[in-house]
Amino acid sequence: MYDRIKGFRDFYPGEMAARRATINGLEETARQYGFREIATPAVERAAMWTDKSGDEIVDELYAFEDQGGRHVTLTPELTPTVARMVVAKQQALSKPIKWFSTRPFWRYEQVQQGRQREFYQTNVDIFGSSEPEADAEILAWAADALTGLGLTGEHFEFRISHRDILGGVLETFDADVDTEAAIRAVDKSDKIERVEYHDLLVAAGLSADQAAQFDDLVAAGDLEAIVDFAETETVTDAVENLQNVLAAAEDFGAREYCTISLETARGLDYYTGVVFECFDSTGEVSRSVFGGGRYDDLIESFGGQPTPAVGVAPGHATLPLLMQRAGVWPDEEVSTDYYVLQIGDTRPTAARITRDLRERGNVVETDVSGRSFGAQLNYADSINAETTVIVGEQDLENDEVTLKDMVSGDQIQVPVEAFPGDHDRPTLEDFDA
Amino acid sequence: MYDRIKGFRDFYPGEMAARRATINGLEETARQYGFREIATPAVERAAMWTDKSGDEIVDELYAFEDQGGRHVTLTPELTPTVARMVVAKQQALSKPIKWFSTRPFWRYEQVQQGRQREFYQTNVDIFGSSEPEADAEILAWAADALTGLGLTGEHFEFRISHRDILGGVLETFDADVDTEAAIRAVDKSDKIERVEYHDLLVAAGLSADQAAQFDDLVAAGDLEAIVDFAETETVTDAVENLQNVLAAAEDFGAREYCTISLETARGLDYYTGVVFECFDSTGEVSRSVFGGGRYDDLIESFGGQPTPAVGVAPGHATLPLLMQRAGVWPDEEVSTDYYVLQIGDTRPTAARITRDLRERGNVVETDVSGRSFGAQLNYADSINAETTVIVGEQDLENDEVTLKDMVSGDQIQVPVEAFPGDHDRPTLEDFDA
Repeated sequence: MYDRIKGFRDFYPGEMAARRATINGLEETARQYGFREIATPAVERAAMWTDKSGDEIVDELYAFEDQGGRHVTLTPELTPTVARMVVAKQQALSKPIKWFSTRPFWRYEQVQQGRQREFYQTNVDIFGSSEPEADAEILAWAADALTGLGLTGEHFEFRISHRDILGGVLETFDADVDTEAAIRAVDKSDKIERVEYHDLLVAAGLSADQAAQFDDLVAAGDLEAIVDFAETETVTDAVENLQNVLAAAEDFGAREYCTISLETARGLDYYTGVVFECFDSTGEVSRSVFGGGRYDDLIESFGGQPTPAVGVAPGHATLPLLMQRAGVWPDEEVSTDYYVLQIGDTRPTAARITRDLRERGNVVETDVSGRSFGAQLNYADSINAETTVIVGEQDLENDEVTLKDMVSGDQIQVPVEAFPGDHDRPTLEDFDA
Repeated sequence: MYDRIKGFRDFYPGEMAARRATINGLEETARQYGFREIATPAVERAAMWTDKSGDEIVDELYAFEDQGGRHVTLTPELTPTVARMVVAKQQALSKPIKWFSTRPFWRYEQVQQGRQREFYQTNVDIFGSSEPEADAEILAWAADALTGLGLTGEHFEFRISHRDILGGVLETFDADVDTEAAIRAVDKSDKIERVEYHDLLVAAGLSADQAAQFDDLVAAGDLEAIVDFAETETVTDAVENLQNVLAAAEDFGAREYCTISLETARGLDYYTGVVFECFDSTGEVSRSVFGGGRYDDLIESFGGQPTPAVGVAPGHATLPLLMQRAGVWPDEEVSTDYYVLQIGDTRPTAARITRDLRERGNVVETDVSGRSFGAQLNYADSINAETTVIVGEQDLENDEVTLKDMVSGDQIQVPVEAFPGDHDRPTLEDFDA
């Protein structure tokens, strides 16, 4: 009768189990790194984006006026919200501030594979350190999180650069260049034709020759050649910072996943230093799986004290595609340890066994529908029960219940008073005399 | 610079740790019951509420028109969404369908203690069983979930009734009664003056005498007296169903938390059978902590096959108040197993130790800010590190690191190659020769 809105997803239990395992994996690694969970509003002042963001994001806002006349929007990303939170408690928070959270965001985009209008991200950020170790810790978390999900260096790579390398090289041209426009062009360069790319660079202020020269320099990716070409402190410092981040990433175990790639520029305007994107190294590499980088100016632009920041945000629409191509996406199935089957008026005993098994931490279901033996056994199958405990009136007359292994089909009778006994997760073997 | 919107909360790490422990507790119990996690859209067609819901909920919608001209709303509750999901896959889903999820909802309400405009709920529902065992399983889950959080029967009670008892009694009066209006009056009766309550009953169609008689019957709560008064099948069946639910709740271990209370009617119009509300039995009982009940007609009204349903939704704004009054709210603090402190150029060794400790499942931080010994030690204190591993240049010359117990202040030197060695969570005692 009512349809789901385009670009929004329902997640049923099987798919959700796989997603939850993935989210838990990322979050568990974040906890081990000492990132602390936060939770944030779904709705903020629209001005947090309309004042500063690029047109791309503003055009995609789910913005509206609330009943109090506020101009508000569903949040399209986390970063401005955490910036607001850091500013609000700047004095009280000990630095570095290391936060993570997993939640949905909303953008009115063209819907396609791996891109919905409601999309989930796990955001991981460090505020308060400008040192290369902070960038490297973000890279190391991302690498550990992905390898924790079963991915390896054969499946993914981090393409890494520094925004000031491109910006610094652009400054050296004898031209009035719109640096942000040129960097946006670089960011798009692997998705568009060469001619179109050069046209964008020319539109940003370069001559045709300069555009070609710039393209060649960037594509070659030779850091020394770039330092020599630019001969500016900006470029020299940026290259040194990138190399320091990579050296720290070596100590932190993440260097092997990193490839220097100067085309990596990130579309968002607030990045200021090292930027990186995770790409699928097995399949088509036309789109990044997720990205991150340093954004040292954002907190100050939100009215806070200057506070360096670096972060990353794996998205739960594209990450499953990477995991599926690598063959490490979890089975989309529910699992159940025990089904306690009732035949006749055996509810008190079945309920007692059900409660005992649950108290020991098991996933246990029992009949709540008054159904037949066959219907219950079909249901136990449908929820992938490992073991069915059959509590029948006749067995109970002999003070017994029947354990049925749902894979092998083997059955065994067990004294009801001894079940589950001392066993936290009893199997047929535990009672096989 | 930008303010948070009224009625929306930021959750910083300390408070979030307590909330996460609470949510994990509810969800872990739900998993043990065989409830399966789902995830659902934040935005739905506004018509899902404007077509059917009471004015109260419609007036509070965060509704707007999206860029595609759709009339949409932030979802104020989960139930219509899961009804839509059940209808969409009715044939494929094996019954009973047992789902849970924790997420925010949004209502433009008056903000007060325990009531925000963005509020989180853990919804737990069973679809496809009309048997009293399903109602009882919902009650048992709620009881186990709350006791799992450290609450006891001294802290909470479930006030339970059946909508048809009130409806059935109202039908027996020789009057043209608006049953839903009268039930809404009952639902408000403990929050308003007696006179106002009787006025609402009269406005719903009862005479003044009938209103007084109805009030007396309901307040006494004597099920047999009500059956005798009504002498109708509706009331007799409703009382019998309520008693059957309580008998099943006895087997499932939840009966002791249940009190029959016919005033409990739940404000929402879609309830059809047993309804219950959780109240704080220690403090002021003016408002319920959360509620639930049976809503057998909703799926059909959404275009599905007739599908009985029962559910409950503890809210994470009121539950903390109950837990705080009972003294079982978790400490609002972050915890850290190890801080690995670097003095001088010891990053490679510190990073190796950090990684080893994290791989063993510990929460470990190390310096990413290039700070002094004192600043690092203060930071380790601020994150409640249990143990600090001091990796100093001088110690390393002797192939040693220093373990410092952050509570006792005790220190001990340990061979760097032996740390953490075979220990998953090494303490000073493990190395005390």
